Amino acid sequence: MAVLDGQTLAKKIRANIKDEIKKFVDMGKRPPGLAVVLVGEDPASQLYVSMKEKACKQVGMYSKKVLLPQDISESELLDNIHDLNEDPNIDGILVQLPLPRGLNEHVINENIKTDKDVDGFSPVNFGKLHLGISGFEPCTPKGIIRLLKEYGIKIEGKNAVVVGRSNIVGKPIAALLLRENATVTICHSKTENLKDYTLRADILVSAVGKAHIIKSDMIKEGAVVVDAGTTKVEGKLYGDCDYENMLAKASWITPVPGGVGPMTIAMLLENTMEAYKKHVFENINSK
Amino acid sequence: MAVLDGQTLAKKIRANIKDEIKKFVDMGKRPPGLAVVLVGEDPASQLYVSMKEKACKQVGMYSKKVLLPQDISESELLDNIHDLNEDPNIDGILVQLPLPRGLNEHVINENIKTDKDVDGFSPVNFGKLHLGISGFEPCTPKGIIRLLKEYGIKIEGKNAVVVGRSNIVGKPIAALLLRENATVTICHSKTENLKDYTLRADILVSAVGKAHIIKSDMIKEGAVVVDAGTTKVEGKLYGDCDYENMLAKASWITPVPGGVGPMTIAMLLENTMEAYKKHVFENINSK
Repeated sequence: MAVLDGQTLAKKIRANIKDEIKKFVDMGKRPPGLAVVLVGEDPASQLYVSMKEKACKQVGMYSKKVLLPQDISESELLDNIHDLNEDPNIDGILVQLPLPRGLNEHVINENIKTDKDVDGFSPVNFGKLHLGISGFEPCTPKGIIRLLKEYGIKIEGKNAVVVGRSNIVGKPIAALLLRENATVTICHSKTENLKDYTLRADILVSAVGKAHIIKSDMIKEGAVVVDAGTTKVEGKLYGDCDYENMLAKASWITPVPGGVGPMTIAMLLENTMEAYKKHVFENINSK
Repeated sequence: MAVLDGQTLAKKIRANIKDEIKKFVDMGKRPPGLAVVLVGEDPASQLYVSMKEKACKQVGMYSKKVLLPQDISESELLDNIHDLNEDPNIDGILVQLPLPRGLNEHVINENIKTDKDVDGFSPVNFGKLHLGISGFEPCTPKGIIRLLKEYGIKIEGKNAVVVGRSNIVGKPIAALLLRENATVTICHSKTENLKDYTLRADILVSAVGKAHIIKSDMIKEGAVVVDAGTTKVEGKLYGDCDYENMLAKASWITPVPGGVGPMTIAMLLENTMEAYKKHVFENINSK
């Protein structure tokens, strides 16, 4: 087996972005800008937001953190989104999920301008993803495909099994694997005999968020295992996959941490760069 | 085995719509209106358009057929779409596919107003479908789910295998089967060992468009078989599935014709009714 090292690849991608931004700023252009909106004080969300902020600063992006109270109304939150939509220094807008109860994430995502929707969760970008038209692709699935390609893993014709059907990972990674010509199966909480499916997977992507739900006896010899789930149990971070016991059996496997996580942030920066180039060089601004 | 009789169910649905329209018209409301845009003179497309027109008239809908020349430019076609978007007597707009070479169907579909996109192929509605938000669902997949439910076929937890990944049938039926809690696999032209997948399907949906590509020895005993493919070979209509030889093996099967086809048109009328009610009773008009 060998490890799919997302940390190292993400570092390389971030270094490239840093060089590119320096070049643009040296040319006299403004730096790319990413706004991260955090509603409430969920500690995990705060951690993710600060990681994204740090990643922005490290590559020379302008990072705007918008902190809003837990009890904000939908219309007040939308006012903040609309301000960011109009802000000429902001290329990408990310609303940290989950939102507090009472706020509908779909309504919020629908109101982010299509050309600033670097998370790819607005209906337009999600539709384009599934139709096969270019648009912003959600960061975690995009990062997974990039990681597989970096290691020369063949996807076409392979039996790819996705466990989990979230809008953030499960559904969009299924769409991207399909675009790469894998035969794709989506399993979830209502799947009967999960092991029947996972055992046949050439490529297994787990995105459930339950510590070690995928055991070593559920994968086939030589499988490629991508672990996109993370759970904290008594302060310790676990992936969906029982990594230690799979090492000998999988041909390739992502560690948790250091696999999919760093790739997600690298793709967020990359999507923001893509938005920036459209704004600054092509002057494209959608409604 | 037993036959999933789309013809009879579609007839029932059309009769209900007819009654409903009569009721609204008796109240003094305008009838619902569907515009069908046909570019060029492809005989199969002409046939489909005339079937849709006839179905509209039969239930009392206003049907507007817009015939445009094969060599129309994209901007001229878009002008026609924009006129229909603004037409207060039109609730639904359908552009018959495929479009002649040189016209990008995605650009056209993106320009149909979301609340008149009764085919559900615009990025916004396609995105909503995959995100799990309510919107217009493509007619063929919607009709398939309705037919399965009419016959009390359990979908949840079943192994559903879709063959074909078109935007019109394959991808959206996979999304709807997933929403109904099936475990869903999408197979296509790059799938290796197709039979390995089809043989395990509790529910098999084929939407390829190749006569009898699915043989009797490719399905398991008791499978539910939905045939959404049609091909004409020397003037005779064939489905994807070798119906005659499957009859004894499948528990349920759709005939071609008389299975999925009539349901597609019934769902088009239903989506148009849905649009109509929003326009007339809720005064909802999107941008």
